[in-house]
Amino acid sequence: MNELEPAFHPRSVAVVGASELPFSAGHFYLRHLLDYGYRGQIYPINPNQREVLGLKTYPSLKDVPDSVDYIICCIPASKVLDLLTQCPEKGVKVVHLFTGRLSETGCVDAAELEKDILQEAKKLGIHLIGPNCMGIYYPKEGLSFGYDFPTEPGSVGAFFQSGGAATEFVRYASLRGIRFSRVISYGNALDLDETDFLQYLFKDSETKVIASYIEGVKDGRRFLSALREAVSSKPVIVLKAGRGSAGTKAVASHTASLGGSRKTWETAIRQAGAIQVRTLEEMVDLIVSFCFLPPIMGTRVGIVGGGGGKSVLSADEWEEAGFDVAPLSPEIREEIRRRVPEMWWDWIGNPVDVSIMPDSAWITGLTGDILRMMASGSYFDLLVVNLTVDAPFGQAELTALISKEVEDVIELKKTGEKPLAVVLNTGSLGIKDFEDWRWKFLAEQNFRLISAQIPVYPTTSQAARAIHHLVELSKEKD
Amino acid sequence: MNELEPAFHPRSVAVVGASELPFSAGHFYLRHLLDYGYRGQIYPINPNQREVLGLKTYPSLKDVPDSVDYIICCIPASKVLDLLTQCPEKGVKVVHLFTGRLSETGCVDAAELEKDILQEAKKLGIHLIGPNCMGIYYPKEGLSFGYDFPTEPGSVGAFFQSGGAATEFVRYASLRGIRFSRVISYGNALDLDETDFLQYLFKDSETKVIASYIEGVKDGRRFLSALREAVSSKPVIVLKAGRGSAGTKAVASHTASLGGSRKTWETAIRQAGAIQVRTLEEMVDLIVSFCFLPPIMGTRVGIVGGGGGKSVLSADEWEEAGFDVAPLSPEIREEIRRRVPEMWWDWIGNPVDVSIMPDSAWITGLTGDILRMMASGSYFDLLVVNLTVDAPFGQAELTALISKEVEDVIELKKTGEKPLAVVLNTGSLGIKDFEDWRWKFLAEQNFRLISAQIPVYPTTSQAARAIHHLVELSKEKD
Repeated sequence: MNELEPAFHPRSVAVVGASELPFSAGHFYLRHLLDYGYRGQIYPINPNQREVLGLKTYPSLKDVPDSVDYIICCIPASKVLDLLTQCPEKGVKVVHLFTGRLSETGCVDAAELEKDILQEAKKLGIHLIGPNCMGIYYPKEGLSFGYDFPTEPGSVGAFFQSGGAATEFVRYASLRGIRFSRVISYGNALDLDETDFLQYLFKDSETKVIASYIEGVKDGRRFLSALREAVSSKPVIVLKAGRGSAGTKAVASHTASLGGSRKTWETAIRQAGAIQVRTLEEMVDLIVSFCFLPPIMGTRVGIVGGGGGKSVLSADEWEEAGFDVAPLSPEIREEIRRRVPEMWWDWIGNPVDVSIMPDSAWITGLTGDILRMMASGSYFDLLVVNLTVDAPFGQAELTALISKEVEDVIELKKTGEKPLAVVLNTGSLGIKDFEDWRWKFLAEQNFRLISAQIPVYPTTSQAARAIHHLVELSKEKD
Repeated sequence: MNELEPAFHPRSVAVVGASELPFSAGHFYLRHLLDYGYRGQIYPINPNQREVLGLKTYPSLKDVPDSVDYIICCIPASKVLDLLTQCPEKGVKVVHLFTGRLSETGCVDAAELEKDILQEAKKLGIHLIGPNCMGIYYPKEGLSFGYDFPTEPGSVGAFFQSGGAATEFVRYASLRGIRFSRVISYGNALDLDETDFLQYLFKDSETKVIASYIEGVKDGRRFLSALREAVSSKPVIVLKAGRGSAGTKAVASHTASLGGSRKTWETAIRQAGAIQVRTLEEMVDLIVSFCFLPPIMGTRVGIVGGGGGKSVLSADEWEEAGFDVAPLSPEIREEIRRRVPEMWWDWIGNPVDVSIMPDSAWITGLTGDILRMMASGSYFDLLVVNLTVDAPFGQAELTALISKEVEDVIELKKTGEKPLAVVLNTGSLGIKDFEDWRWKFLAEQNFRLISAQIPVYPTTSQAARAIHHLVELSKEKD
């Protein structure tokens, strides 16, 4: 059995340092176990409390009447060694050290204490997650380090050296419709490290895609070997943080990791076959692509929707990202000619600028038919629908137009005929915009699309860059 | 007097093709004049109506009893020549041709007709905006081509060859707190062209920054000469659309413009001193920077806020964009040491990771004090505040923390001591997120910051890239 299994499937959990104080880790980890529906035994530990959050509380670990698989440790660093010595008697397998203020402080005494903690844990056969980290989010089992993360599980696994970055990743990816199998925040990586978490997620059948945020690697050779193995079966995205001099300094005071040169990193990770990103935003775009798109076997993109300016700009941006904005098939051109003989039909190309078609085209559903024809042939490897945020005539026209386009897209997605993505920018909303029909309506459409597991990107550049990674990966696998 | 003045300050406007049909241009242009409070005379023209939107309607232009300065023309292309012949009698100075389906269709007859229209207009001494365009948004005078653009004027002037792109630009920039002096959508640029609009906005005292979207330039030499003159007094941002082969094709069917090679363009525009962008999103970020930031005389950036991961990533991203994440001053380090002796004070650097400070630091307002100290010295050229979207403990803590940070930022902005920017990602919201306290709260904070004219960017990369342009421009001017 993997050394991490008891942390993900503990029959019992002790929260050491459990507390009634609302702004304390010992309070919120206990609350999360209750709120997320963890079904095993919960043992709050605190020498000064007889009850926390309505649960019987024990003065120390050794007072717990039963065995304890997993500990969430929220006490000061100075008390950790004593806790560890009590662990074997209770059968503890894994300790998550939320506890920080160790080597990351740059203080010699603290770094020494950290070494002692590792030595003691090794001696006692206990595995450590952390110190200085948020630990585990595993919605399936009711474990969480965020107070309102999604409760339903998904297929994205992640190991993040930063708890804050992990939290932001969960938040922004959730907004885009992503859900998670297991997320691990692992801080200083004193015992279990990035390679252990990577190997664990690689073997985990609930995890389909792996995302990682790494400040420093403990054993480069071991990590790269595990990475090569992992990418052979799942996409692995790596965000290396601490690339420049200021970032490297910040890494030292954050998780006490050693950086390594940017070039070395980039080359090694690329050679191992993993996908590198530079920002959390890129990572979220990629995750959306991997979760909501099938393999894409070529770069020919068909683009529909929006007016002339949007058509021109999106053609530029898809091309600049490495795609081929290929011509429409003769059949589609013939169909347009047949259906709207009153217009110069040769005028329509790819991108399909729907704004230049006569009103009748829209009324007869021609734009939806064009989209379906583009999906059925072999002319395109990918279809992209640009949703406009405006149309000249007013609210009624815009809402009717976009609702119809969204419906067409959702119907087409169901057929599974062709990889399909949507670009829709709902903007950076201020609170007054929450009352505005336009942004409310677009948020509704965004929600409809995401619920149908259609990948939605805020900008063409983001969509094109993320999907291009997917195309390259699909080619390699082919 | 400039040939465009009558279009911006018309004593009277005729809407030719005025209509009661809601989904028609002749309807919405008339409605806009009423809705936006245009105060001159309005003459709807339509041979089949005696009244449109409650206004007396004339069968033809020549039936109007008074003079007409400006015409918004919404009739089919085939009827434009006849309209033009009626113009001199009424003293018409400028005609905006919303009318399209001319050279952009690729149809020979239509291209011929367009030439005839130009010839006739020149003969009669009438200037044309368009054809195939949305015309003028000038909130100060009550002219608009959008049905709910902001009614209050601002300082951004823009000329856009695409009406759809102009509309999206107005929408997204408005969300970021930007308002407009004058926006011109000019389509096929048959008569008045990009150079005329650039020169007009350059001389316009209401316009402080100029943004442009250009598909093709009629007279390259004349445009570049005007561009050089304009950038000597105002920032000019140029988005060249139609850069690749698919984009160039799309440009031909959109505004019948000729592209010109990407390289030639880029070199010429750079040499003229204008700022080039590749996407509308970049343009909006730049506009926010120019409107809300003073000149920035160097690249030393001080960063505050967020946890360890955010600190590391933002250090990387600012450095990679060309900034220097400089050390804190000795005074600030001494102050931290004095105020929080219980922590290893040397641990704090730039970026200032507020999450590692003891709670007491937050309660005593130390983080705000650090920000003020960073603003008052000469150690930094720019301060950036990272607003986190989460904090471990829950709603009460997060809202208190962020509210306080926002208050500190707004107070500091008032002093004008140091250029100041905020990074806050409110995400791509679905309709259910509108009910979520977190995204609602962050939208409130976004609104507070924008109302105080503080530049807010969704991501560090966007902020760093946009502000770097500003630094380079400030250096050149110095």
